[in-house]
Amino acid sequence: MEQEWKQKLDQFRELNKKIKSYNEAVALMAWDLRTGAPRKGAAARAEALGMLSTEAFKLGTSKEMGELLASLNRPEVLEQLSDIDRRTVLDVQEDYDRSIKIPADKFQSYMVLTAHSETLWEDAKENSDFAGFEPNLTEIVAKTQEFIDYWGPRATRYDTLLHMYEPDLTSEKLDEVFGRLKARLVPLVEAIQASPNKPDTEFLNQLFDKGQQEKFGLFLLKEMGYDFEAGRLDESVHPFMIGLNTGDIRVTTNFIQDDVTSSIFSCLHEGGHALYEQNLNPELEGTPLATGTSMGIHESQSRFWENMVGRSRGFWEHYFKDLQQHFPQQFDNVTPEQFYRAVNKVENSLIRIEADELTYNLHIIIRYEIEKMLFNDNLSVKELPRIWNEKYEQYLGIVPPNDGVGVLQDVHWSGGSFGYFPSYSLGNMYAAQFANTIRKEIPNFDELIAKGEFTPIREWLTEKIYRYGKSRKPAELIKDITGEDLNPDYLADYLESKYKAIYGL
Amino acid sequence: MEQEWKQKLDQFRELNKKIKSYNEAVALMAWDLRTGAPRKGAAARAEALGMLSTEAFKLGTSKEMGELLASLNRPEVLEQLSDIDRRTVLDVQEDYDRSIKIPADKFQSYMVLTAHSETLWEDAKENSDFAGFEPNLTEIVAKTQEFIDYWGPRATRYDTLLHMYEPDLTSEKLDEVFGRLKARLVPLVEAIQASPNKPDTEFLNQLFDKGQQEKFGLFLLKEMGYDFEAGRLDESVHPFMIGLNTGDIRVTTNFIQDDVTSSIFSCLHEGGHALYEQNLNPELEGTPLATGTSMGIHESQSRFWENMVGRSRGFWEHYFKDLQQHFPQQFDNVTPEQFYRAVNKVENSLIRIEADELTYNLHIIIRYEIEKMLFNDNLSVKELPRIWNEKYEQYLGIVPPNDGVGVLQDVHWSGGSFGYFPSYSLGNMYAAQFANTIRKEIPNFDELIAKGEFTPIREWLTEKIYRYGKSRKPAELIKDITGEDLNPDYLADYLESKYKAIYGL
Repeated sequence: MEQEWKQKLDQFRELNKKIKSYNEAVALMAWDLRTGAPRKGAAARAEALGMLSTEAFKLGTSKEMGELLASLNRPEVLEQLSDIDRRTVLDVQEDYDRSIKIPADKFQSYMVLTAHSETLWEDAKENSDFAGFEPNLTEIVAKTQEFIDYWGPRATRYDTLLHMYEPDLTSEKLDEVFGRLKARLVPLVEAIQASPNKPDTEFLNQLFDKGQQEKFGLFLLKEMGYDFEAGRLDESVHPFMIGLNTGDIRVTTNFIQDDVTSSIFSCLHEGGHALYEQNLNPELEGTPLATGTSMGIHESQSRFWENMVGRSRGFWEHYFKDLQQHFPQQFDNVTPEQFYRAVNKVENSLIRIEADELTYNLHIIIRYEIEKMLFNDNLSVKELPRIWNEKYEQYLGIVPPNDGVGVLQDVHWSGGSFGYFPSYSLGNMYAAQFANTIRKEIPNFDELIAKGEFTPIREWLTEKIYRYGKSRKPAELIKDITGEDLNPDYLADYLESKYKAIYGL
Repeated sequence: MEQEWKQKLDQFRELNKKIKSYNEAVALMAWDLRTGAPRKGAAARAEALGMLSTEAFKLGTSKEMGELLASLNRPEVLEQLSDIDRRTVLDVQEDYDRSIKIPADKFQSYMVLTAHSETLWEDAKENSDFAGFEPNLTEIVAKTQEFIDYWGPRATRYDTLLHMYEPDLTSEKLDEVFGRLKARLVPLVEAIQASPNKPDTEFLNQLFDKGQQEKFGLFLLKEMGYDFEAGRLDESVHPFMIGLNTGDIRVTTNFIQDDVTSSIFSCLHEGGHALYEQNLNPELEGTPLATGTSMGIHESQSRFWENMVGRSRGFWEHYFKDLQQHFPQQFDNVTPEQFYRAVNKVENSLIRIEADELTYNLHIIIRYEIEKMLFNDNLSVKELPRIWNEKYEQYLGIVPPNDGVGVLQDVHWSGGSFGYFPSYSLGNMYAAQFANTIRKEIPNFDELIAKGEFTPIREWLTEKIYRYGKSRKPAELIKDITGEDLNPDYLADYLESKYKAIYGL
């Protein structure tokens, strides 16, 4: 009897490794499509990508997987398994239960559709041509609705999607959390707008050589401890981090000549994601646990490095001289303090990925509300540009001059990632809550940043978060580390304290 | 009945497309490993690559494939099939018959081994450390010997390997062809060595900016008609061309600061390979015929563009001014004629890929003889550096100072590609034989080159060779196009005529 489950465990591990190989191929194909694959190969590539995703999906829902789970997912076996094996069984079971409901042919046509769509979206964004992208997006939404039917709606149809990115998160909870956040941030934004004490950003209106931007991005990634022996930096339309295996965690950025801060902060952002995956327990390799535990926790790490570290006063006290060296003369008459203030200017703007960390949450709330309308209220895709523009006017007081900088600005929907956007604000909230604890446990936290000494901070994060990968649930992590559940007040406290100082309120 | 084979044909096409998707993933993983994948991910990558290759292999030897072939590969069905379908059935049958003899687990461990080995080889080459690579190479040779046993030896054990790269080629035929070639080339090389009229290459001994080399390489690829919408240029230790799908045919080169000609001619070389695959009949996409028909024919195209075109007087009469523009001042006192003579200097040298087109064949004959010894005479891998150095002394009068520029210089053996090297000289011979026919059919051939007008030449090659892909056998092509079988005299004629003029013999 004992012999039997041990053999099953070996087979289970092998099957997971096999699925992992497919996922690595799919991830590489996706990375390649976004970083420079030739356009004429995109159609055949999309077919190949869809086929391999489907094979991985078939393995994950195979009779063999079902039987292995039935053998291993029993109390008398689970209690004998190592922590990693037990968590793997439970994780795979969850995925199996969800995936088994989707017919393989539906899954394949969905994968092919979304693989094609990303290229179409790129073109549409470039040409501000929503009409050219609309039929595809309509099909993606329709197929997602179909999937919700297969999975079964949770509290609302949209909650089914939320759950995929942030386990057990509900729109009821999000409504509450976003509500508390808004109640404290809206007056803050208003006070800021009324303040005469605005940061000067004039000196950012220059052209910055792309090659030098790349060098500075590489430098910052090295400084934060990104391991280039286990990753690489490339350029793509939309910056992203992608893990191929635990020794190959890649980041991309986008060098914009007239906006040097864009690549700086996207390098810090994607670098934060990458530090999470580069510091996983290596024993997780080949298991589905070798990744972040949720999109929200993942985002907490990118936002932590981008904002709590990278937009802090200490960081620029230390690194401003390096920035000056990379762009000689261009910052001659600027002080570190001026630069710190400039990169923390609060402004109601159009583009989410370039928004300040305060109004950023409004960009997310807009998307959250629109996604709820799409899936709970059957909003037609055709209506998206109109609704988008209305909400930007309502929340931020500005209307996008075209859809390229409006509804088409983000890659997410072209890949079917509905329910993902709230993760960004969750990330902000988690990050602030973690930072509050770090400050207690590493009292010289700010001093370390001001010296560019990130090792103790990275080690703390590795010890508490990174090494576990997906083997601890988000709620478990936040409770274990901070002693309480998700609490939006930490983010509000952090933002109030920081921005009242900057704006002299 | 008719209905039945039509259904089988659809299934057969689908299965081939599926195999093609795996092959695309495997090719992308290989490209990525060679162009910049981080080292710490290489081990997991090798596992994934081995697994996916094995899956493709299993599909190609599956019961389903066997049954489909049994249904379709019958005279009464074949005669009703389109030319492409019929050729596909026959091609897949050949591959099936060969592959079915190898047990899947043997194939998988071989794929994992060779995937690991390439990284090991790179290190060994860099450090001139043959001992560090020897155990792996020994294992690769042993496994290849085992495969020869499974396939069954042809006329000799080595002939079994030759046949894989050049169908039906035998070592008996090669001995004869290489013999005839040697008989004419050796006296020519001797006369050249005795000539006082040597090209001046002093002006090549400069440092050339790598960024400018890249720009010039990109320029030349564009000029020859390489389609960057269906490919890209990257850097790798060993230049190569790889086809992912018919719309994605990539090339790489290696920028060497003190040797500008290396990247120039490897761009033309790999560009020649790429033109072949970029100009396939698009209807071949998804079939195993969407590739070159043999390594020899493939090499004929790379050698044609590199040597017949790129090392011609007319080419540099036209492009020397562009070279000068890319490297201002560096060629100020040089004439096109001097440059033409310099890039055609005959010299007994160490590195195959940098050898002139005359002695190049000696580099190949050395490898050919060593490979025969490895597989027919059980030469021990341990002996390779000694034998290598002896043969270089015997044939070229020089001894490599270390194994990095000796026996470790080529990537081929690390990937198990034994029997591949002769393709390079076959390529030279085919290229010269094709060029002889082109000159009759396009009388202003040399004039077109001197104007940089390659379209008529590329169209001729597409019409006669490229579009067919693997749907015509090499022997069929050479006979149909030139009216006779492979004849080494065309290469000897071409080389004699060209080099007698250069060296004033």
